[in-house]
Amino acid sequence: MRIYGMLDSGNCYKPRLLMALLGRPFEHVETSSRDGTTRTPGYLAKNPIGKVPLLELDDGRFIAESNAILLYLGEGTRYVPADPHDRAVVHQWLFFEQYSHEPNIAVRRSLIVYPERAHLATPERMAGLLEAGNKALAVMETQLAKTPWLAGAAPSVADVALFAYTQDAGLAGYDLNAFPHVAGWLDRVRLLDGFRGMDWQPTN
Amino acid sequence: MRIYGMLDSGNCYKPRLLMALLGRPFEHVETSSRDGTTRTPGYLAKNPIGKVPLLELDDGRFIAESNAILLYLGEGTRYVPADPHDRAVVHQWLFFEQYSHEPNIAVRRSLIVYPERAHLATPERMAGLLEAGNKALAVMETQLAKTPWLAGAAPSVADVALFAYTQDAGLAGYDLNAFPHVAGWLDRVRLLDGFRGMDWQPTN
Repeated sequence: MRIYGMLDSGNCYKPRLLMALLGRPFEHVETSSRDGTTRTPGYLAKNPIGKVPLLELDDGRFIAESNAILLYLGEGTRYVPADPHDRAVVHQWLFFEQYSHEPNIAVRRSLIVYPERAHLATPERMAGLLEAGNKALAVMETQLAKTPWLAGAAPSVADVALFAYTQDAGLAGYDLNAFPHVAGWLDRVRLLDGFRGMDWQPTN
Repeated sequence: MRIYGMLDSGNCYKPRLLMALLGRPFEHVETSSRDGTTRTPGYLAKNPIGKVPLLELDDGRFIAESNAILLYLGEGTRYVPADPHDRAVVHQWLFFEQYSHEPNIAVRRSLIVYPERAHLATPERMAGLLEAGNKALAVMETQLAKTPWLAGAAPSVADVALFAYTQDAGLAGYDLNAFPHVAGWLDRVRLLDGFRGMDWQPTN
């Protein structure tokens, strides 16, 4: 399998981290959405939405959207539960991540980290993203005060998805001291067998 | 089963529409996020995120997030395919809907429809939402020029999820004449056996 993505993107880190946790081989193809590569005809033929990450299967087919890739790769492993209700809880967190977490915490991080985006970081926008991101972290804190992992007693792709940008929440301007259960959960994720940091890529 | 939601919300319409298509009985409990009901302790005990829709199972457990509810209700029916790659394509559209479609088209609709949100409808914001929503509609148009349904040859929960706000895109200020394949697909959805419009609720 081949994963097209950027080493410094949390969304692209998600499938790399899951593959590391599962101990599965894959090829990382560095593909940037900031230098125009994802808008070339060649790339758009692979993924009409023009975004990364993108998973290429051994048969040449593609799967886009980071959390759809996690569900595909995790199916049949301990990272995607078999019980219908447990699965639904995992799905719930994955949609929460894309709707309530990533558009605030990842976007605020990008406005701080990438100089070409700095002009978009108006005080009003940064304040709005701070408030909405803190709400998302509070939802995680409430759950993680009750269970060690987001979907309950065992780690799942929900933890992989939400780890990606929560680990960088400090860089994005959020104070994780206000969310001690989230901070403890970040440490638990880092201790999972096979864990690799965001800058990791396999030696092909 | 019981679905908490608002009759005029597209996100809440999604599970109602799927239940109608599947011909399954359920109870609709009108629950508004605009009158404070979803922020009461009683509701927050059911759904800590304080949002609708919310599915209550017969055993008293809950599932939140509209698209997670669709996957739960659709599992084992023709609306969620069994093949792993076909499932991944459905998941891809569901995440696309929550990340690239709903935050533009549904939000622009809400800024037009609800007087209490009108002060947020600045010209810059409305222009940005128009551009981003048109990009999402263009992605759908590309797919629907190739296949009758978003995930291929058969209708799926991806069509249910994306129908909810696309049907109201005109109200939100988008010109569907520019997306003829999307317009044709809306008509196909309306012809599905069991189809019901957004203001429908079952007689309990």
